[in-house]
Amino acid sequence: MNSEVGGPGELEESGRSGAYPALPDRVDWPEFQKGLVWLIGAGPGDPGLLTLHGLNALRQADVIVHDALFNRDILGFAREGVKVEYAGKRGGKPSPSQKDITLRLVRHAREGKRVARLKGGDPFVFGRGGEEALALVRAGIPIRMTPGITAGIAGLAYAGVPATHRDTNQSVTFITGHDRWGVAPNAVDWVGVAKGSQLIVLYMAITNLAEITKPLIRGGRPSSEPVLVVQNATLANQRILETTLEGAAADVERAGIGSPAIICIGENVRFRMAIDWMAQLEGAAPRTLDPLASDSNFRWGESE
Amino acid sequence: MNSEVGGPGELEESGRSGAYPALPDRVDWPEFQKGLVWLIGAGPGDPGLLTLHGLNALRQADVIVHDALFNRDILGFAREGVKVEYAGKRGGKPSPSQKDITLRLVRHAREGKRVARLKGGDPFVFGRGGEEALALVRAGIPIRMTPGITAGIAGLAYAGVPATHRDTNQSVTFITGHDRWGVAPNAVDWVGVAKGSQLIVLYMAITNLAEITKPLIRGGRPSSEPVLVVQNATLANQRILETTLEGAAADVERAGIGSPAIICIGENVRFRMAIDWMAQLEGAAPRTLDPLASDSNFRWGESE
Repeated sequence: MNSEVGGPGELEESGRSGAYPALPDRVDWPEFQKGLVWLIGAGPGDPGLLTLHGLNALRQADVIVHDALFNRDILGFAREGVKVEYAGKRGGKPSPSQKDITLRLVRHAREGKRVARLKGGDPFVFGRGGEEALALVRAGIPIRMTPGITAGIAGLAYAGVPATHRDTNQSVTFITGHDRWGVAPNAVDWVGVAKGSQLIVLYMAITNLAEITKPLIRGGRPSSEPVLVVQNATLANQRILETTLEGAAADVERAGIGSPAIICIGENVRFRMAIDWMAQLEGAAPRTLDPLASDSNFRWGESE
Repeated sequence: MNSEVGGPGELEESGRSGAYPALPDRVDWPEFQKGLVWLIGAGPGDPGLLTLHGLNALRQADVIVHDALFNRDILGFAREGVKVEYAGKRGGKPSPSQKDITLRLVRHAREGKRVARLKGGDPFVFGRGGEEALALVRAGIPIRMTPGITAGIAGLAYAGVPATHRDTNQSVTFITGHDRWGVAPNAVDWVGVAKGSQLIVLYMAITNLAEITKPLIRGGRPSSEPVLVVQNATLANQRILETTLEGAAADVERAGIGSPAIICIGENVRFRMAIDWMAQLEGAAPRTLDPLASDSNFRWGESE
């Protein structure tokens, strides 16, 4: 996303061109033992958001089983000869059931492989990592959890929106717009969310957006409340839409924004008018230096 | 935390012992240009939870300005000759004001340095990153945001507690137990949180815990609701306390648990009885394979 890039060799002081430096010995880099499954968060898409533990895992894995929401460039970090398996939907074919995926992980582990289960974002944040972990424990397979950066935080950060700011919020709520039946979750008390959650970050909510924004407005949120939509967060094809609670569903449809996307509802979205660092690195000026001023002359629109 | 560790050289296929492999050319590793400030999340403590972008930043920075909640081992990733400055509280001395820290960042940047502002966790999640970013933009200093893993997600994962699970919650709320005046935040509608947030994760709430749990119970949360307390999350000296909403404040005091700590309130805590993967890697058996069964014979207590 930054046009001023350098190969990794340029990062070196001397001597080891093209290689990252050795990591300090005092850090315990875990050995990936045979027959284990590591559940690894790949982050939201930008390969640079993978963790060092994630890199360590991919360098040792015998087999990588990965999901749909995931930048395939990250597979370039794996060792030569690794077996890569896709466990998501593709080309209209039915996706493997969660049970089938778990059985596959168990089978690989029982064959003595080092199994990297790689998921977009964080495995434990709307990633079904808990279900897979529980199934593996029940099958007697030892596991290791390797957290990843979740899109709800990084997608906002890349757009210049802090998830928390002392002037606006002491809480932030992450909610899925899909339950296991694909509809807006009835289990969520949206009126309670409207009252109790200063900043709301929705995952997988594009399809059900109108069914979510209406009860939030009924629950007392201003229809003019700023809304940020980030599609393909942190990737080169990231798209950002600025809208309002009232206009969000129609604006998303008009702009043709589809999944995967993160939707943020709250006053913090205003900070983007000042802290849109990606645009500023390309030469843009801040739209305002006082984003919370009530008369901030902001212009909502789309940028790519 | 795993006693079976290997130096990074063991991860190599051949030839480059002691070094991490080159990263793929197709990934845009940004160049740290002079006069910029990068706000970087160091993650919650385990150095392996630093991101590749974080490593890339530390390898290029001229000066690192870091906070208190932070594992100093991560400084071992920086290049030789880097200037390291501490910007937190130490030894009873008053901590530098936020304004002083910002002025220091501006001064370094104006001197043409590559300034890495390193914060524990994620800069934009209860890290004052928004305030620093806004101040830097106002001063005309270009910035880059590099997200980090937040303790509220990783601390739970290391304890075997998924932040979300389809059988228990469609939402998770992160809340600070400190506002800028150091008291439990009056701006938070705790009764609304009790109703609208299925899983609650508190940051910096040890001191004000009793003032938070009481209104949650008044708001309808069961006094027997499971609570997880994780001190020094993801570090070698991580301590974990399992308790209930009613008993949490007294149990934390009795156990002598202090800051930094994450507190998780909700049914998801039960999954730890099955998915305590760190204990299981050391040979422990799961306490149950059916953590959500109402008759799960769980034993709350402390483990280190």
